[in-house]
Amino acid sequence: MIAVDWGTSSFRAYRLDANGGILDRRSAARGILTVEAGGFADVLAEEIGAWLDEEPGSVFISGMIGSRQGWKELPYLGCPVDLEAIARACGTVDWDRGRQAFIVPGVSCRDAHGVPEVMRGEETQIIGAIEELGPDAVVCLPGTHSKYVRVRERRIMDFTTHMTGEVFGVLWRHSILGRLSETEAVDDEPAFDAGVDRSAEGQGLLHHLFGVRTRGLFREIPAAGLASYLSGLLIGHEIRAAAPSAPVAVIGAADLTRLYCRAFARCGVPARPITGEPAPRGLWAIARSLGAAT
Amino acid sequence: MIAVDWGTSSFRAYRLDANGGILDRRSAARGILTVEAGGFADVLAEEIGAWLDEEPGSVFISGMIGSRQGWKELPYLGCPVDLEAIARACGTVDWDRGRQAFIVPGVSCRDAHGVPEVMRGEETQIIGAIEELGPDAVVCLPGTHSKYVRVRERRIMDFTTHMTGEVFGVLWRHSILGRLSETEAVDDEPAFDAGVDRSAEGQGLLHHLFGVRTRGLFREIPAAGLASYLSGLLIGHEIRAAAPSAPVAVIGAADLTRLYCRAFARCGVPARPITGEPAPRGLWAIARSLGAAT
Repeated sequence: MIAVDWGTSSFRAYRLDANGGILDRRSAARGILTVEAGGFADVLAEEIGAWLDEEPGSVFISGMIGSRQGWKELPYLGCPVDLEAIARACGTVDWDRGRQAFIVPGVSCRDAHGVPEVMRGEETQIIGAIEELGPDAVVCLPGTHSKYVRVRERRIMDFTTHMTGEVFGVLWRHSILGRLSETEAVDDEPAFDAGVDRSAEGQGLLHHLFGVRTRGLFREIPAAGLASYLSGLLIGHEIRAAAPSAPVAVIGAADLTRLYCRAFARCGVPARPITGEPAPRGLWAIARSLGAAT
Repeated sequence: MIAVDWGTSSFRAYRLDANGGILDRRSAARGILTVEAGGFADVLAEEIGAWLDEEPGSVFISGMIGSRQGWKELPYLGCPVDLEAIARACGTVDWDRGRQAFIVPGVSCRDAHGVPEVMRGEETQIIGAIEELGPDAVVCLPGTHSKYVRVRERRIMDFTTHMTGEVFGVLWRHSILGRLSETEAVDDEPAFDAGVDRSAEGQGLLHHLFGVRTRGLFREIPAAGLASYLSGLLIGHEIRAAAPSAPVAVIGAADLTRLYCRAFARCGVPARPITGEPAPRGLWAIARSLGAAT
C-alpha cells in the first residue's frame, strides 16, 4: 500500500509492505497550501506515479489534506476515538484510472472550559505509535501547534493545543525580538535552558517576552543565543501550562523531540522520545482495520 | 517653550506658554525609525521651524529619540527617580542657529527576578500626570509595550513591561489567527469581553491563542469579532499577570484607555483614566525644574 502524510507545508509518501515495513519513500515541499483547488490528484500522481504500476494496493492519506483547504473536507470525529472508529470514518476520493484514495478524518474535542480543539494528522501518528505508547499514555506532539493528547485503553480521550511553534516563528521574524540577531537556529543550550527557567517566574509570558529584548540589549544573553532563549521561554510556558499529569511520550521530528525532552527534564516532568515513523505506521494500521493493507 | 514627544513611529510637537498651557500643536508620522542617522536636526526644523521666530524658548524632547537609534543615546537612569533627577540628566544636542535641544533620558530597573526593564517617554508622561496621580500611584500605560509603574512619594520606584500590543499586531497580521477576518478593528465589545474572561481560564496563553482560531472556525465568535476577542484575551492575560496591588491610573490614547478600563473592570481591578496630555506637561515640568520653562 501507499501511505501519505500530507500536511500544510509538506508532503511525505511511503510505499509499505504488507506488514507496514517501509519499502520506499519520498518527500516534497508540496503541502496543501502550495496546491491550487482541484490540483491534488495531479500532484499526488506526479509524486507517487512511479510506484503505481508495481503497487496495486490502496492509498491512504492523513493530515490537513482532509481540511476545507485540502482535497476533500471530512468532518472531525468527536472524542473519544480509537483506531476502528477512525478507519470507519475515512473518506474516499476518485483519483487515478478508477483508483480511490482514502483520506483520514481529523479529531475534535472540547477543552475543560468548552473551547473547541482540533487535530488533523496527529491522530494517525498516535495510532501508529500505540504499540510503543502502550494502552494508556500522555503524548506530546511538538510543532507549529503543539498537542498534548491523553490516551486511555488505546483511545484518544481529549487533547489541548498550544500555538508555541507558530508564535516563535512570527515573533522572531516580525517583532522587535528578532532584530538583535540573524540566527534563528535554536542551538545554544545554556540560553535555551535559561529561557525554560525563566518561564517558571512570575508576571506572565507577555512580560517575559519583553525580557528577551532587554536581556539582549544588556548583553546578558548573547545575540546568537536569543532565538534559543525565546524558544526555551515559549516551550517552558507551554509545558508548565499543560502540566501533564503523567510521564510524557514525545512524538516529533528528531531535533524538536530532543529539545522538548530537554525542556521537560528541566521542568521536572519525566519524558521519553518515541522513535520510528508513526505516520506511515498509523496509516497502515487504519488500512489493515479496513482490510485494505495489502 | 517647545515640547516634543518623539517616539518610534510618531512625532508630536507642542508650543507651550509659561504655565505649560498648549498654544499650538502638530504631529506627523515621522517617528525615529523613519529618520536616517544624521537627519534628526533637519526633521525637527522642518516640523517646528514656523514656530521658531516667535518662540525663543527651549526645545525639550522625550521618547525613543534618546535611544541608540535616535538622535543621541542617553544612558538609562536607574530607579527610583524623580522629576529633579530626570531633569538633571537631560542631554543636549546642538541644533538650529546655535540653539540647543534637550533630550530626556529613559529609565531602567530590574524586575523581581533581576531581568532588565527599560522605558523611554513614559517617565515624562508620569511626571506630567503627577498632579492628577497624586504622590503614590500604580500607573498603567497601555500600548505596543504596556508598562505598569509604581510611584511612591512622586518617585518612579520600579515598573514592568508587557509586549501586549506588539504581540497582538504580529499575531493578527502574520499568524493563522488573522486569516478568518479582514477586520483588525477592536470594536466588538461582547467578543472583547469574552477574550478577557477567557484569560482567567487554565492552561495558559499559548493554548488560549489556538482557541481564537477554533472559536472562529466553529463560528462561536463572529469573524468580525475575532480581533476584539484576541485583544481582550491578550489584555486580560496582561492584567492578570501584572496583578496590580492598588487602583490603577491609566495613561494612554483615548480609545486604548477606554478599552483597558473596560478590561480592568472585568478583571475586578479598580481603574480610572488620566485625562489631558501628560507628555507636554511632563516636558514643561522638566524644563521648569531646569529653569528653562519660558
